[in-house]
Amino acid sequence: MRLVTLRMGDGSTTAASIVGSAAVRLPFSDVGELLAQPEWRSIAADGGPPVEADPDDVAPVIPRPGKIACVGHNYAAHVAEQQVEEPRFPTWFAKFSAALCGANDPLVLPLSQSRSIDWEVELAVVIGRHCHRIPRGQSDEVVAGYCVANDVSVRDFQFRTSQFLQGKTFAGLTPLGPALVTPDELPGGSPADLRIVCGIDEEVVQDARTSDMIFDVDRLVHELSWILPLEPGDVLLTGTPSGVGAWRRPPRFLQPGQQLVSTIEGLGSLRNTCVAEPALSGPDLSGPGRLGPGRLGPD
Amino acid sequence: MRLVTLRMGDGSTTAASIVGSAAVRLPFSDVGELLAQPEWRSIAADGGPPVEADPDDVAPVIPRPGKIACVGHNYAAHVAEQQVEEPRFPTWFAKFSAALCGANDPLVLPLSQSRSIDWEVELAVVIGRHCHRIPRGQSDEVVAGYCVANDVSVRDFQFRTSQFLQGKTFAGLTPLGPALVTPDELPGGSPADLRIVCGIDEEVVQDARTSDMIFDVDRLVHELSWILPLEPGDVLLTGTPSGVGAWRRPPRFLQPGQQLVSTIEGLGSLRNTCVAEPALSGPDLSGPGRLGPGRLGPD
Repeated sequence: MRLVTLRMGDGSTTAASIVGSAAVRLPFSDVGELLAQPEWRSIAADGGPPVEADPDDVAPVIPRPGKIACVGHNYAAHVAEQQVEEPRFPTWFAKFSAALCGANDPLVLPLSQSRSIDWEVELAVVIGRHCHRIPRGQSDEVVAGYCVANDVSVRDFQFRTSQFLQGKTFAGLTPLGPALVTPDELPGGSPADLRIVCGIDEEVVQDARTSDMIFDVDRLVHELSWILPLEPGDVLLTGTPSGVGAWRRPPRFLQPGQQLVSTIEGLGSLRNTCVAEPALSGPDLSGPGRLGPGRLGPD
Repeated sequence: MRLVTLRMGDGSTTAASIVGSAAVRLPFSDVGELLAQPEWRSIAADGGPPVEADPDDVAPVIPRPGKIACVGHNYAAHVAEQQVEEPRFPTWFAKFSAALCGANDPLVLPLSQSRSIDWEVELAVVIGRHCHRIPRGQSDEVVAGYCVANDVSVRDFQFRTSQFLQGKTFAGLTPLGPALVTPDELPGGSPADLRIVCGIDEEVVQDARTSDMIFDVDRLVHELSWILPLEPGDVLLTGTPSGVGAWRRPPRFLQPGQQLVSTIEGLGSLRNTCVAEPALSGPDLSGPGRLGPGRLGPD
């Protein structure tokens, strides 16, 4: 099964199932809402009416995960390019859901704040049921499926303190999608050995296999589930291979006009065009009492 | 105004307003749902019928914040006790909402995984409206109010990799409450200079003033809001003063039977009794197909 969260013309979204080249509507507003139903697999298999929407106009496949738990330093060659030691435990950090964007959305680069915005293609794992303290070897029972992410990182913010969060959670810089793909659709029924590639325009900048992970999906689910319960719709980002921009000599970063293409075998591609942010016109407050123009950035 | 999320006898919760020693019911399931209403102040001021519930049986005041953004290294004396440099920028990290517990709940210590569980009393800020890119000096317009938190930390997990998250987000170890207190109830109408105290049983282990913060509330809201939009119910934990257990010589950690009391002037107290976790009986899966007994911990 391939499940997507489609944007409708009226500003709403709907969960949908991709059948051939068509999308059929499922009775939930997004794939996260669908996964919250214990019987989500049969609901999705039952299908529904065709959707009158562009099947490429997808929201983040899970728009508001309860958790986005990310792992750093999880591919040996990426660990080597940073000259850090190979880790004994997964290096967990988080991002907030406002960091997500759709698989084909523009990446709006916050150039007034940073010129060091970097790429990180990653395999994303989506949890399909409540679970806590899962033994090794049993993650198949709790994983709904997989998708592609790019953990686009604002490197100066990531490294200006010891904690990565602020460079990892800028608004709208993390595409997640295009579809939640259930394991039965993958080669060998498993994410264990898939090609994972990141391109900028026509150039391949990352090219590896998920079998190069230091901590595999089963180990990651096991480890995190011993810290706190996991819930349907939680998302785990499993780390990026070597080839990111910051560790190149000289370093390279994303520029307006470039297309970032993130592909994993069997899961499809994210295609995000980088654009400069519009001129800032002051703070954004949705309620009454809108403030006047503000300062241009944190000091 | 003092707003709480009360547990009802039937397993549900309700938002309530504390008026004198009584609680009146508000028509939302928790304070987070209430704050999502643009007119939350007038709804809360209008009040409702008395609640038939124990006013001390409170859930986390915001049970499911969209974000819990925490700051490390924000009191000069705490920075000094760790022998790290005074920071130029806030050190942001996250925790997930399953880490929260109520103001008077037991702290269930995961002793099968760690014996180094430590205290960190903190001022918590609750956001009251959507906002992005807030100028310095204008956070008053977006903050709903304040409460007390204890960022109870599993130190060996916190420091086994470079990123704090895993030691900061164990299930149910972060009390948040007891009430959301609006700024007009605070001395001077501001959180800028409140006494903040942590006690273990009768012993005071942390005792400072919020005026010792390196980055004040206004600066923190400003900085975070330039990274991504803030939403009603988002929670910021503003760092802990000196006196935690890990930096004592010898180190000290929480033990079953101890009561952890976290108090901030004008905001009330959290009173959490430490208990040992029950004997583990294998993984927890709420759905069908329950698994057999598992291994006792991550390896």
